[in-house]
Amino acid sequence: MTITSDKDRVVIFDTTLRDGEQSPGATMTHSEKLEIAGLLDDMGVDIIEAGFPIASEGDFNAVTEIAKNARNSRICGLARAKAGDIDRCWEAIKHAEKNRIHTFIGTSALHRAIPNLSMDEMADVIHQTVSHARNLCDNVQWSPMDATRTEWDYLCRVIEIAIKAGASTINIPDTVGYTAPMESADLIKRLIDTVPGADDVIFATHCHNDLGMATANSLAAVAGGARQIECTINGLGERAGNTALEEVVMALKVRNDIMPWSTGIDTQKIMHISRRVAAVSGFAVQFNKAIVGKNAFAHESGIHQDGMLKNAETFEIMRPADVGLSGTSLPLGKHSGRAALRDKLEQFGFEVGDNQLKDVFVRFKELADRKKEVFDDDIIALMRSGEDAENDHLQIVSMKVVCGTGGPAESTIEMEIEGKDVSATASGDGPVDATFKAIRELHPNTARLQLYQVQAVTEGTDAQATVSVRLEEDGMIATGESANTDTVVASAKAYVNALNRLIVRRGKVGEGADTREISYKDVT
Amino acid sequence: MTITSDKDRVVIFDTTLRDGEQSPGATMTHSEKLEIAGLLDDMGVDIIEAGFPIASEGDFNAVTEIAKNARNSRICGLARAKAGDIDRCWEAIKHAEKNRIHTFIGTSALHRAIPNLSMDEMADVIHQTVSHARNLCDNVQWSPMDATRTEWDYLCRVIEIAIKAGASTINIPDTVGYTAPMESADLIKRLIDTVPGADDVIFATHCHNDLGMATANSLAAVAGGARQIECTINGLGERAGNTALEEVVMALKVRNDIMPWSTGIDTQKIMHISRRVAAVSGFAVQFNKAIVGKNAFAHESGIHQDGMLKNAETFEIMRPADVGLSGTSLPLGKHSGRAALRDKLEQFGFEVGDNQLKDVFVRFKELADRKKEVFDDDIIALMRSGEDAENDHLQIVSMKVVCGTGGPAESTIEMEIEGKDVSATASGDGPVDATFKAIRELHPNTARLQLYQVQAVTEGTDAQATVSVRLEEDGMIATGESANTDTVVASAKAYVNALNRLIVRRGKVGEGADTREISYKDVT
Repeated sequence: MTITSDKDRVVIFDTTLRDGEQSPGATMTHSEKLEIAGLLDDMGVDIIEAGFPIASEGDFNAVTEIAKNARNSRICGLARAKAGDIDRCWEAIKHAEKNRIHTFIGTSALHRAIPNLSMDEMADVIHQTVSHARNLCDNVQWSPMDATRTEWDYLCRVIEIAIKAGASTINIPDTVGYTAPMESADLIKRLIDTVPGADDVIFATHCHNDLGMATANSLAAVAGGARQIECTINGLGERAGNTALEEVVMALKVRNDIMPWSTGIDTQKIMHISRRVAAVSGFAVQFNKAIVGKNAFAHESGIHQDGMLKNAETFEIMRPADVGLSGTSLPLGKHSGRAALRDKLEQFGFEVGDNQLKDVFVRFKELADRKKEVFDDDIIALMRSGEDAENDHLQIVSMKVVCGTGGPAESTIEMEIEGKDVSATASGDGPVDATFKAIRELHPNTARLQLYQVQAVTEGTDAQATVSVRLEEDGMIATGESANTDTVVASAKAYVNALNRLIVRRGKVGEGADTREISYKDVT
Repeated sequence: MTITSDKDRVVIFDTTLRDGEQSPGATMTHSEKLEIAGLLDDMGVDIIEAGFPIASEGDFNAVTEIAKNARNSRICGLARAKAGDIDRCWEAIKHAEKNRIHTFIGTSALHRAIPNLSMDEMADVIHQTVSHARNLCDNVQWSPMDATRTEWDYLCRVIEIAIKAGASTINIPDTVGYTAPMESADLIKRLIDTVPGADDVIFATHCHNDLGMATANSLAAVAGGARQIECTINGLGERAGNTALEEVVMALKVRNDIMPWSTGIDTQKIMHISRRVAAVSGFAVQFNKAIVGKNAFAHESGIHQDGMLKNAETFEIMRPADVGLSGTSLPLGKHSGRAALRDKLEQFGFEVGDNQLKDVFVRFKELADRKKEVFDDDIIALMRSGEDAENDHLQIVSMKVVCGTGGPAESTIEMEIEGKDVSATASGDGPVDATFKAIRELHPNTARLQLYQVQAVTEGTDAQATVSVRLEEDGMIATGESANTDTVVASAKAYVNALNRLIVRRGKVGEGADTREISYKDVT
């Protein structure tokens, strides 16, 4: 069954949790994936590609859980052109009321050489696997990976086979981010004009931003006849990333005069999900990023230059409120009550039970004692830094650090490890090095620090700082994050947070599918 | 005299120092502007828009100095449609062997209303000001600001007037980042087909990235007949920024098959200048930024997944070396000598005299004592953090900080202020707050902290961290930066660095042109 979609409607297919999450270093935890899926569903994303179920137990479980919790979105899983992949995918997505199997194979000469298949052999594989998927699921998407570098006649032939075998969406990936707008529009148009049965399916565009043109290429494909855009929040994705959801959606909205197609996205939810994806992936958004960067809306910079207000319409093509930026949100303070905090949390899409509210409220009060005004971003950071703490293997009890220009820094740290209180003192180059060394004494490990960054959450010297730490051990990567008004304490907590995640990941490697065998590098 | 350019050559006009630098918070110092101009010249940028000479003494001096030091690039200054602006611009750029006056006026109805000019009156102003510029300088560029929203007939009429008055380049700015590729190509093509004299001048495209399409729009304009692209390094610029130089240049190189136009850019110099602009502007580049992001080239992530090497050509359309990324650069260590350091510095484009080398070498040795391997990025951070120190009003002598979970942090700091040693102790929420409070006690000020961020320069817990601090006081903004293995010491130095810059800027407000009167908001 084809997605019913009138000619002016563009289907938004979000792959933040699949193509975005496979970006080196952007690994998300199970609970983070569920949260992001909930936000995507809530903002009106038509189809959520939730993961690659065969790749690991973790992926399988996340896709299963997301399928169970889906409300309006269709839940899609990725599968290579193998019956085992497709079966596993179906097991995960079958729980959703609306679901989709997305299966793919590399069709260019370069990619046909990897499994060493002839054109005819690959055509058979495509027929078999799409048919198999269609027998399980009434909504199948098929992708010829590296389509833009596949021989034209062969591309038409395999697409026709996939359509006949039951695919209702044909996705044309620009796997290496190589195409340009005219070419992108032309390819889709020619395919629709040429391939028998093309009128009965939806063509999708899947672009990468290697040359900075993913947004324009996606919109050009729509002009050429595509009616599904594959994209990610913040353009997250391998290398230079995928098409940014916020850019294509806002471009269609702002320039509806020349691009008369609509989406189902509630654009006012863009800023919140952008911030959440930045936080959980550890991929910060640059100030001058279109739509969601801190500077994207001039007045956001806090500068009120003469004449700017009167000129606002002269220089702004979107209102900040259109993407969910409200300059007028009132900060909370130490006298704010539990109800006000709950209201605020609900505004941001956090649903908290009474116990969780109690816990957050205690931390909110602690913060409000130290900080005059507690802003929206503080509340989000607060929610974030309290997550998962209960089940953590390692916990920080207390710490004290002495540093400065007089010699090495010294850090004394007390931790609870498997229920036992232990402590250590270490010296190092600066407070962060000393603290990390002390933690390593208490929990010896070989993890390498790949990334360390600190960002003030709001303005002012008493602001909370969010620290992100990325660790790598034996090819496994974990990102930890913590917010605190003390950057050194936040650093220690972020480091411990990352270690706890590594511990969880180490435990999973033994189980089920071996993540290493299936390289994401072989995926569109 | 028109720039001689064959039909296949696209002129690269860089405006990092003008449109980029006017981005809120991206203010650069005099010496930083000179350094960036030198790098732009060196990488083969055809035209450097060095500033807006009438805007302030600082801008005038920077443009003058850049003009004096120019080697191959043409040096351009911006001027509004006023004789005084144009004269001042000429005074600054006349020192360059090749120079250009760029004058502009807003031609859309919205912009005509600001000076309250009728169409005829504005046409006269354009004729007079372009003629005036042409009498001073044989190379004049004219821009109808907000061209994309100007009435078609009027746009053709004023461009014809500018050409007749002697403009040799006509720039078509998409001031609000509103256009899309097809429209961008079509506008340039129709102008060239319609306006008498269009064949004798070069049309330029100046795009903003509000909808994420600046690169595609610029390249589409070239397909439509434009032969000059206006751009900035890292896409620096107001709101979502300008067209990114690295993206248009690499797209023209990689897709020369469908975009058969060349530039004079040495692409191997891209990474270095990208890093320098990120450092001096305080605008970090996101990991998934096209071409210059940390993740833009997969193997840069430090992960060697199975099969990636054999698949490299399958997934990479550019080689990292094409943009100046070399994975094989050898780190320096504590046994490296002065000659090795000088070699390294020269590789990065730093030319140091013997005295400066001596100073840098001392700091290099200090770092090498603390850190096993000193990487390329460490050396760059080292060069950066030593700049300007001599003339600083405020200097840090020593500091000591105690912090942790046990209560407020306490910071004791000793500074030299105007030759006098002073010290103070303050407590605060975390080491950074306490330190900034102690500094404020010694140098009372009302500057607001707008931005605080920390980034590890390289991997490992003993890495140096670069701290960026952005302060705002009475509408003036200053960014400070410092690198140290101790993040708290780096924070203090970055804060003091920003304060020193504010002091310099305060001193300048009295002199010469009033920066406040001329709002950059009224500029393309």
